[in-house]
Amino acid sequence: MSAPVTPDTTASGDTAAAGILREILDGPWHETREMVRENIDRAELLPDPSRTLDQARAQILDTMRSLAGNGFAAPGFAADHGGTGDVGAAVTGIETLGYADLSLMVKSGVQWGLFGGAVENLGTARHHEKYVPGIINLDVLGCFAMTETGHGSNVAAVETTATYDAATQEFVVHSPTASARKDYIGGAAEHARVAAVFAQLITGGPGEEPEGRGVHCFVVPIRDDDGNDLPGVTTSDCGYKGGLAGVDNGRIMFDQVRIPAENLLNRYGDVAEDGTYSSPIESTNKRFFTMLGTLIRGRVCVAATAGAAGRKALTLATRYGLLRRQFEAPDEQGEVTILDYLGHQRKLLPLIAKSYAIAMAQNDITARLAAADPDGARRLEADVAGFKAYSTWHASNAVNTAREACGGAGYLAENQLSIIRGDIDVFTTFEGDNTVLYQLVGKELLGAYADDIRGLSARGWVRFVATMARDVVAEKTAVRQVIQTILDDSDEDTDDSSLTNRGTQIRLLRKREDHLLRTCAQRLQKSKSDDDAFDVFNSAQDHLLKVGHAHTERLVLESMIATIAECEDGPVRELLWKVCDLFVYSVLEADLAWFLMHRHVSVERAKAVRRGVNDLCTDLRPHARALVDAFGIPEQLLTAPMLDHG
Amino acid sequence: MSAPVTPDTTASGDTAAAGILREILDGPWHETREMVRENIDRAELLPDPSRTLDQARAQILDTMRSLAGNGFAAPGFAADHGGTGDVGAAVTGIETLGYADLSLMVKSGVQWGLFGGAVENLGTARHHEKYVPGIINLDVLGCFAMTETGHGSNVAAVETTATYDAATQEFVVHSPTASARKDYIGGAAEHARVAAVFAQLITGGPGEEPEGRGVHCFVVPIRDDDGNDLPGVTTSDCGYKGGLAGVDNGRIMFDQVRIPAENLLNRYGDVAEDGTYSSPIESTNKRFFTMLGTLIRGRVCVAATAGAAGRKALTLATRYGLLRRQFEAPDEQGEVTILDYLGHQRKLLPLIAKSYAIAMAQNDITARLAAADPDGARRLEADVAGFKAYSTWHASNAVNTAREACGGAGYLAENQLSIIRGDIDVFTTFEGDNTVLYQLVGKELLGAYADDIRGLSARGWVRFVATMARDVVAEKTAVRQVIQTILDDSDEDTDDSSLTNRGTQIRLLRKREDHLLRTCAQRLQKSKSDDDAFDVFNSAQDHLLKVGHAHTERLVLESMIATIAECEDGPVRELLWKVCDLFVYSVLEADLAWFLMHRHVSVERAKAVRRGVNDLCTDLRPHARALVDAFGIPEQLLTAPMLDHG
Repeated sequence: MSAPVTPDTTASGDTAAAGILREILDGPWHETREMVRENIDRAELLPDPSRTLDQARAQILDTMRSLAGNGFAAPGFAADHGGTGDVGAAVTGIETLGYADLSLMVKSGVQWGLFGGAVENLGTARHHEKYVPGIINLDVLGCFAMTETGHGSNVAAVETTATYDAATQEFVVHSPTASARKDYIGGAAEHARVAAVFAQLITGGPGEEPEGRGVHCFVVPIRDDDGNDLPGVTTSDCGYKGGLAGVDNGRIMFDQVRIPAENLLNRYGDVAEDGTYSSPIESTNKRFFTMLGTLIRGRVCVAATAGAAGRKALTLATRYGLLRRQFEAPDEQGEVTILDYLGHQRKLLPLIAKSYAIAMAQNDITARLAAADPDGARRLEADVAGFKAYSTWHASNAVNTAREACGGAGYLAENQLSIIRGDIDVFTTFEGDNTVLYQLVGKELLGAYADDIRGLSARGWVRFVATMARDVVAEKTAVRQVIQTILDDSDEDTDDSSLTNRGTQIRLLRKREDHLLRTCAQRLQKSKSDDDAFDVFNSAQDHLLKVGHAHTERLVLESMIATIAECEDGPVRELLWKVCDLFVYSVLEADLAWFLMHRHVSVERAKAVRRGVNDLCTDLRPHARALVDAFGIPEQLLTAPMLDHG
Repeated sequence: MSAPVTPDTTASGDTAAAGILREILDGPWHETREMVRENIDRAELLPDPSRTLDQARAQILDTMRSLAGNGFAAPGFAADHGGTGDVGAAVTGIETLGYADLSLMVKSGVQWGLFGGAVENLGTARHHEKYVPGIINLDVLGCFAMTETGHGSNVAAVETTATYDAATQEFVVHSPTASARKDYIGGAAEHARVAAVFAQLITGGPGEEPEGRGVHCFVVPIRDDDGNDLPGVTTSDCGYKGGLAGVDNGRIMFDQVRIPAENLLNRYGDVAEDGTYSSPIESTNKRFFTMLGTLIRGRVCVAATAGAAGRKALTLATRYGLLRRQFEAPDEQGEVTILDYLGHQRKLLPLIAKSYAIAMAQNDITARLAAADPDGARRLEADVAGFKAYSTWHASNAVNTAREACGGAGYLAENQLSIIRGDIDVFTTFEGDNTVLYQLVGKELLGAYADDIRGLSARGWVRFVATMARDVVAEKTAVRQVIQTILDDSDEDTDDSSLTNRGTQIRLLRKREDHLLRTCAQRLQKSKSDDDAFDVFNSAQDHLLKVGHAHTERLVLESMIATIAECEDGPVRELLWKVCDLFVYSVLEADLAWFLMHRHVSVERAKAVRRGVNDLCTDLRPHARALVDAFGIPEQLLTAPMLDHG
């Protein structure tokens, strides 16, 4: 154990280390990140808490216009639609905006990611030609109208209808009930002129009764050039929120609004002039999930930005912890900063380690998204769902902890943390409620990605799992060769090997996932009939959620280990292995009761885990500054009066 | 296990139960609570997020004036000073304001609790006569200027000086450095006209060198009637914060400000005309801690109000959970509300159970404060410190969880949760940082409340503990007879008895506390010299913090059990015992690894704990509405559009 009082870590060795660490964390999109960093390194981009809602919204739109002028949005769209077609750059660009103002990220994400993504991915050539250039340069301001007041998590059940009228070749868009109101829609309160509206398509060919064809997406103009609601459209304002003042969330009701037939985004389903419906995908369910699948970029961006927000909060708190002194000096020579206290280290350093793991896993997720492998699409969707939950809950926790670690100073808006806290809060909810997302992961794993289980009710899904009558085992996604090599080179027996052995670390998390998956399946297979299926599902729900978490955490660890294993050998890599150890020890500590109860960890080893976290905190304390500097957050965006003195 | 779909719980039986539960929760101050509830049952008292800072501050001051007009503040002051001398009523009155607007509670707490409390408890007749009536009726608006920019947790080290000038019989109040600036002071930005300033008193009698006499409190006028800074005083505004918009936090610098000698609050230390210092308490340290001890009411009020805020958030989320439907119905007859899902129950019901435990413990703490037993003062201080940490962390967690449990609706300011979230955040910091408070509890327990350990450095304290050379055992505070009877009537052997046995429940938490205390002492006793004392302290800091937590949680459980044991036998008491079981099971689950590692709980029993939480959630689900209705939050203060439909 080294002494708690440590040398100034801005020494040149650690500054050099921070530079190398930054490139490792930045991953394949280092250049994009550096360009955006340079672009946003301006304190005036930080949220000003004294702005009115109107001022905040106008300011964010202005900033978006300046970003658009710099070509910021082009990577998100295909080259032949007017973009540059670099999905990874699009995601990391949005992510990096999170260092400035989360309202800027969210409003940009709505315009270019969600609304633009709907047109890009659900539309066809006629839509790309007509809309994409305007979406990129902001001539076309849009919103993404999926969620309804009554339908947040279960969007297959939205009530808005779009009924085809063959006589006029129009769709009639309508909100039949109060719960069909589009709600919380970013852009709907003020700026959006058009909406990508998700609605139940109703049509029939000649001689057919019109019938529901499932949820489709339509481009619906909602405001005129002056910003007034168009006839039949009634928008309203969600008003103040817990944060994100610069995002104009609103509501939309449609009263028999007529739009031209061509406004159906018809890649996955089309209506002929005479009303005949056609689709390349026969099953309504499969069609809907295929459409949703093309929209996961939004969820990837939310996860990525949450990672950025967590890193920023931890950077502010770490710098403060290295500056702030309280109570006595331990000896005549030195003075104790609050980060010299073990209690304070334990608050921040495990979260920094987790931020490293998440940043590395994010790069893998973004790369998989960019690779757009159709065979891996379904697994990617599940992994993104879990990772979004993992990353946003981490961010929420990290920001809370960072605020508290800065005491009263942390509560002042001028020091940013309380603003980040208000902004990040809803990340655990939007683009999918985290609990629902972990459940989705669990259901996909237990259903072995069977084609026909999506869209099943809890009961239907339980009956499916109960009757599969086979052993459920975790099927691994394609793992980088380096992970396989580590496993091959390490001892199978996790009991005896060191907890700092990489193979042991991976095996412990794999065993947890496998065990949870197997035992969850056993519980579900107790269902004997439709009558008990919901009860069986419900009594195992906490177990199912834990499956989603365990799977995700295992993926995150494997990304981290693979990333570090591929780094050049040297002191920086050694430092990263320590960070990896701290992540693993913290993961074990957080779920230690489970590992003990299921005898994956002995009592003696469990005690070593707690001591190990303490020891690793002490070891990493001298590198705390370098570890957060490596995040590469633009200095102007770290403006905080609490960091001025010292 | 019963079916997840449960009858409407607004049935008359549960309404009656809610009434009885409310009286039990209200405790000895039921009448006071009912009176304040009636007084504040007005939606216009809820925070309006569109207010500017100025408007918010002005509105809160207005509301305080109307409260003052109704005699709200009188109970906090002695009858012969112009009050009615009912401390319990004063605390519960402030606590109940937490249901309306936390800014109102904080600003009221500053004026009547902190500033008023300083004058009341540190002053003497001349101060009581001059100030107390004006404090009660708001003719004298004050602030409590203890914290400095450089000194938050370590207030014995404040740098502000008050130097006696015998020539003019004045004190000269001065801020010698930037870090001596009074900071985060509620009221200092705008409304306060006078400040209770904590400063190092410097004086000497004839022929003596003036010397420091430790921290004392002085009444210092800071603004004239028009609100302008007085000569030598420079105030500034902390501006926007994470919440509490209605509280005007600010900063004060003093440049050789002269105040009359009589403005020293001289109950515990006085200066004669010639500069001679005198005090009834010889030790500077002991004197300071005696002064601080008289001010614990503020901390009690913060704990109490956090409890109220948690209850309100849980009420909103529970009502929403009983209304909101998502995904399928389990059978043809019923529809599932989100609170029918186990995952959702697990989010909210354990927090409701903890809120019950905390409310009951709060009544005990308030009663001990009101009893003002000088022999128990020191223990009460430690228990209040721990309880404040326990209650405010719970509130922070409960409000976060409640927000998330309400999804997007929870994020809209109109539904209150995001505002409560922003307001409650700093409760974990002010009136003592929670981590520092748990540490204080641990230090007091390990030091066996020895007189001379307070104010010792970490090193000094470790050396004291290391040389005590005795077995540390938990010394119990006076426990109600009913707890002793329960223990006497139950089997000593916790291994075999049921986890729903009250004696077993108490013993498990007592064993944890004793074990932690003993082993922490052993670690500290390894210190061999001054040289290693800080390192020894630091490496055991997480252990010490856990002692503070375990002690506090044990006290909370004993309060809960004693309260329920004293209730009339019947179905309401049976319901409360189930709530108690859920609290205990959740406590065990949260720390299960510790109980397993130290063999206080077997693996089989540990598995039963997880199942037990699930079973209790299912059992309590039908009573969820009654359980939160029992909190008795005025209906107008639960105004939230998300609760209008359904």
